[in-house]
Amino acid sequence: MLPKQNRQVRLKARPEGIPQAHHFEIAAAPLPEVGEGQFLVRNRYLSVDPAMRGWVSAVANYSKPVEIGEVMRSRDVGEVVASRHAEYRVGDKIVGWFGWQEYAISDGKGVIRRVEEEDIPLSAALGVLGMNGVTAYFGLLDVGEPKAGETVVVSTAAGAVGSAVGQIAKLKGCRTVGIAGGPEKVRLCREEFGYDAAIDYKPERDLDAVLARACPGGIDVYFDNTSGRISDSVLRHINKRARIVICGTASLASWDPWPIGPRVERHLLVKSARMEGFLVFDYEHRTGEAVPQLAQWVREGKLRYREDILDGLEAAPDAIAGLYRGENLGKRLIKL
Amino acid sequence: MLPKQNRQVRLKARPEGIPQAHHFEIAAAPLPEVGEGQFLVRNRYLSVDPAMRGWVSAVANYSKPVEIGEVMRSRDVGEVVASRHAEYRVGDKIVGWFGWQEYAISDGKGVIRRVEEEDIPLSAALGVLGMNGVTAYFGLLDVGEPKAGETVVVSTAAGAVGSAVGQIAKLKGCRTVGIAGGPEKVRLCREEFGYDAAIDYKPERDLDAVLARACPGGIDVYFDNTSGRISDSVLRHINKRARIVICGTASLASWDPWPIGPRVERHLLVKSARMEGFLVFDYEHRTGEAVPQLAQWVREGKLRYREDILDGLEAAPDAIAGLYRGENLGKRLIKL
Repeated sequence: MLPKQNRQVRLKARPEGIPQAHHFEIAAAPLPEVGEGQFLVRNRYLSVDPAMRGWVSAVANYSKPVEIGEVMRSRDVGEVVASRHAEYRVGDKIVGWFGWQEYAISDGKGVIRRVEEEDIPLSAALGVLGMNGVTAYFGLLDVGEPKAGETVVVSTAAGAVGSAVGQIAKLKGCRTVGIAGGPEKVRLCREEFGYDAAIDYKPERDLDAVLARACPGGIDVYFDNTSGRISDSVLRHINKRARIVICGTASLASWDPWPIGPRVERHLLVKSARMEGFLVFDYEHRTGEAVPQLAQWVREGKLRYREDILDGLEAAPDAIAGLYRGENLGKRLIKL
Repeated sequence: MLPKQNRQVRLKARPEGIPQAHHFEIAAAPLPEVGEGQFLVRNRYLSVDPAMRGWVSAVANYSKPVEIGEVMRSRDVGEVVASRHAEYRVGDKIVGWFGWQEYAISDGKGVIRRVEEEDIPLSAALGVLGMNGVTAYFGLLDVGEPKAGETVVVSTAAGAVGSAVGQIAKLKGCRTVGIAGGPEKVRLCREEFGYDAAIDYKPERDLDAVLARACPGGIDVYFDNTSGRISDSVLRHINKRARIVICGTASLASWDPWPIGPRVERHLLVKSARMEGFLVFDYEHRTGEAVPQLAQWVREGKLRYREDILDGLEAAPDAIAGLYRGENLGKRLIKL
């Protein structure tokens, strides 16, 4: 029996900078009717991503901001519990843009893919086999173009995206160097994600010198999730024809006004180097290329992942701020 | 009869920033003997390029700095006047790295190409058919990848590289917008180099607003010769998947210490845009692809160029500083 009510997390106020718990509210709505050509999904896991900061921001971004009063936008994995749609049957496991709520109605438009990997935990569909894994896969391989023997540096190296980048680079024969914050994440980089070297950026010391020691042959690919002073140091060590993948800007608390930093133009010029922004949304139509390969690596134990699973809808409002406090180890999810 | 002496312009002191007249000295050396496998070139035109600032700088660059006491490095065009080399005969016209001097001895290593275009003035071999034209050709076509119908913005748009970029982009079916300093250069952009719009960056006004009006469909390719505030404005108007070719940083007086500016990472990220450094030296082996096409366009009147020819070796020491004072219209050369 389905309930009458659907609990939702809605955007209550527009944040300046990082969204905090008080920017959201939990409210109930009537469970929607399933119309002809529609189906109802019961969300099992909700995703929590650093990029959500951008989705609720009024500042120009790659997508329209979530409106005040709207259910928070998210990728989620759930199960079809009622259907009047020809292609979706009760029991199907589906990843899609269902939002931070218990139930979502869909006509199929927000669906990203059907989960086929019965042998891998469902939660992985939002992390290593979801946006994070697909981001790592295309961001590294398509934009970073790593070649065997090259040195690949990754920032937020123990994170959901970074850890996959490091492991995929290693699988491609690269030397991998991870940059992460704090001894626990650095340990994870070395022991769990197989980085050849891992650097803690937090202690007050000369990051340039530490990087130079970790990358004696210079840096060929930099997978950048942070921007800021970490990236400024990395740029001073790039090799000729280096590729810098801009995937996130986690270290910048705000980008309005435009933050100031050392100019990159001269570095790119003298090294004939490339800096390119990567958005996984541009690759959504190619998800089907990446997921089977990622799943195969997971089964073979070559691609490890960590999850940080919060319990219940009540955990959602503070969950993004928690990411920026650095409190999670691994992909953050909310289990419903 | 050959003279006994060879007059040269040598680097006398290492400049901080832009090299001035007092950083060079004119001196005489004995005319070298032509050994077996060598030939002697009489320089006809010496090149003067903004990039020379980098060649005499001690700051990390793409080439070894010119040593104190050494003849100033330059691309030049000259005529073989004596030869004991199997492949070069007296009378051959040759472009090569001969340096700021009247005569140069060569074993063929510094030669870039033989001039075959008898119907085009010899000086063009250093400009529109030389480093500038080849820079425009590969920088725009290989790195900028313009497509018909796209908007291409060029900084230092009336310069030797910029004017060729604008015209080649136009030949490829793009809408072209030039940015230049002062009404005379802006007029040249419109009347001589065929830009669809030209912007004077010098008056104190809102460059953002002016750019927005000139590029109603946004900017797809930015060929950047300046860096600095012009580029900061352009970046705010780029389209999804824009390509930014970093070819020069003329607006920055110094890059040690690293100049500060608005961070580009977020702009590149949200637009999946690319910023890439271009060095024509990486394309030296492909000069032969570009030159015949450039020469054909010149013959057909589709690729116009301007020259600023100084007279005699005495003009050389102050010639680079003059470029940065913006006193030239077109490619600066020294005629010997």
